[in-house]
Amino acid sequence: MSAPTLVTVDDIRSAAERLRGSILRTPLIPAAWADPARPLWIKPESLQVIGAFKVRGALNAISRIDPAARRRGVVAYSSGNHAQAVAYAAARFGIEAHIVMPEETPEIKVVRTRSHGARVVLCEAGQREAVAARLVAETGATLVPPFDHPDIIAGQGTIGLEIAEDLPDVATVLVPVSGGGLASGIGTAIRALCPHAEIFGVEPELAADTAAGLRRGSPVRMSIQERNRTIADGLRSEPSELTFAHLQHVLTDVLTVSEDEIRSAVAELAVRARLVSEPSGAVGLAAYRRHATPAGPTVVVLSGGNIEPALLADIVGASAAVGVDQGH
Amino acid sequence: MSAPTLVTVDDIRSAAERLRGSILRTPLIPAAWADPARPLWIKPESLQVIGAFKVRGALNAISRIDPAARRRGVVAYSSGNHAQAVAYAAARFGIEAHIVMPEETPEIKVVRTRSHGARVVLCEAGQREAVAARLVAETGATLVPPFDHPDIIAGQGTIGLEIAEDLPDVATVLVPVSGGGLASGIGTAIRALCPHAEIFGVEPELAADTAAGLRRGSPVRMSIQERNRTIADGLRSEPSELTFAHLQHVLTDVLTVSEDEIRSAVAELAVRARLVSEPSGAVGLAAYRRHATPAGPTVVVLSGGNIEPALLADIVGASAAVGVDQGH
Repeated sequence: MSAPTLVTVDDIRSAAERLRGSILRTPLIPAAWADPARPLWIKPESLQVIGAFKVRGALNAISRIDPAARRRGVVAYSSGNHAQAVAYAAARFGIEAHIVMPEETPEIKVVRTRSHGARVVLCEAGQREAVAARLVAETGATLVPPFDHPDIIAGQGTIGLEIAEDLPDVATVLVPVSGGGLASGIGTAIRALCPHAEIFGVEPELAADTAAGLRRGSPVRMSIQERNRTIADGLRSEPSELTFAHLQHVLTDVLTVSEDEIRSAVAELAVRARLVSEPSGAVGLAAYRRHATPAGPTVVVLSGGNIEPALLADIVGASAAVGVDQGH
Repeated sequence: MSAPTLVTVDDIRSAAERLRGSILRTPLIPAAWADPARPLWIKPESLQVIGAFKVRGALNAISRIDPAARRRGVVAYSSGNHAQAVAYAAARFGIEAHIVMPEETPEIKVVRTRSHGARVVLCEAGQREAVAARLVAETGATLVPPFDHPDIIAGQGTIGLEIAEDLPDVATVLVPVSGGGLASGIGTAIRALCPHAEIFGVEPELAADTAAGLRRGSPVRMSIQERNRTIADGLRSEPSELTFAHLQHVLTDVLTVSEDEIRSAVAELAVRARLVSEPSGAVGLAAYRRHATPAGPTVVVLSGGNIEPALLADIVGASAAVGVDQGH
């Protein structure tokens, strides 16, 4: 098996040109209440139009499909945010989107995917890829994978370009890892532009396959049932050969966080940063709180904000009861 | 009584130069789920370091005090966000801040004001200005008023400059009105740079003194007890002679919203825009929902995000129960 070709910072620069004007160029939000030795900024990808970074990769990938093929539409499988991203991007291109989602997907993500005009096909956990392949065969549409594609990685990597532009002396970047497209792209950009920065992936302890895999030097597989235990429903995928190769190349290490730490970080983001985060989006801040990350300017990537309102109310209400606000 | 001299767009441009690098240049967040005839953007001043726009005026005003006088410190009275803004700005200048706050101020705002190193003096509602005047006499510090000063108005007006830069064809701007510094400044900038735009102030029905005053052509006074009925604790002040003159000059009209509409807008911002807003910060969106504002690109200024966590949990939880997410 030959080593996969890695995405370059020039691929990411080209993606940034393609995305200009179609995405929100998110600012770095200073977190003045954080540790002064590790001054903290939050990159709020939750403010993208579909509430998550995934719109970057989806728009880049669809813009790269040959126009004749693109007219036949696109197919995607996703636990949520990639689904909305492909649905939104397809609508912008005026093409049909078929979105395969596992049955346990939060209702809010199904509703919003349909709201962009996409056709949603629900399936059993673990069957998504097979169902998507069948739809591709039936319709002639093009599969837009959630992370296993250079154009997806390059699109997500534009976040890293923006971090390097806005904070060139960044010392530490903390990025959620699931399928690994986000961390592969950001890591590639930061490695090229800020060579002295450390880049940490972050995973829930309950879905820490990449932490174990990088330590061993080859992917470690966890069952779907195991990975589904975490509240971070966006972090239940595992890297592909392509993203694993990127992660090996660009990450300093992978840090893990507990379920309680994820909940606390969701509360802290709402109360201190006035940003709504889904559990998956908050793992970077959770890692900053738990681990003694290196001194110096630190960026946490808040990857998405699509949380069920009842869960947000529950987490923020519980934090009010224990006074999270006065803890830092 | 001669007419007061009004702040100009050049004053606002000078303020923007002074603030460059010291504040967050907030982006316009597209609200894709809004009315297509009135495409909507949110200006999230809640993301400023103290969670509200007030840091703009406070930094501008303190930077304009003569350095010898500035070393004796500053005094401010405020129901909350201006307090934190002056405390933060004073700390940046390395000077002392005495902050006078009414006893009913939400605890979260008192705690955060103290966290910047300021001395907080609690007083009865309606006594703030007198207590502040006594502190000025005792200490030789300079009063930084919450809105009744050209440097404050010019500082807040930098928001208008940014809106005009980012969305030059804006048709409608919706801005909360209380003391009127924010609406005076933004209105001045937008009138100068986007002469065809309509600029609406927004008030709670329960504190609609400015709506009544502009209709009559002179300020209408409401009792503190009346104004204190609204949940929007940042909108309980009334304009000064200086800000009233600006509002007469720059506003198209003042729209009012109910308490229920304010709560719904707080929920909508959290769930759809992934932004935490305090009730006062959400009145612009409430007005967009309630009133048939003009067609065309619309900006709502989300003025602040300092809400008690228990209240946020209550509002978002109630919206989850009735399914606000599927309403639009």
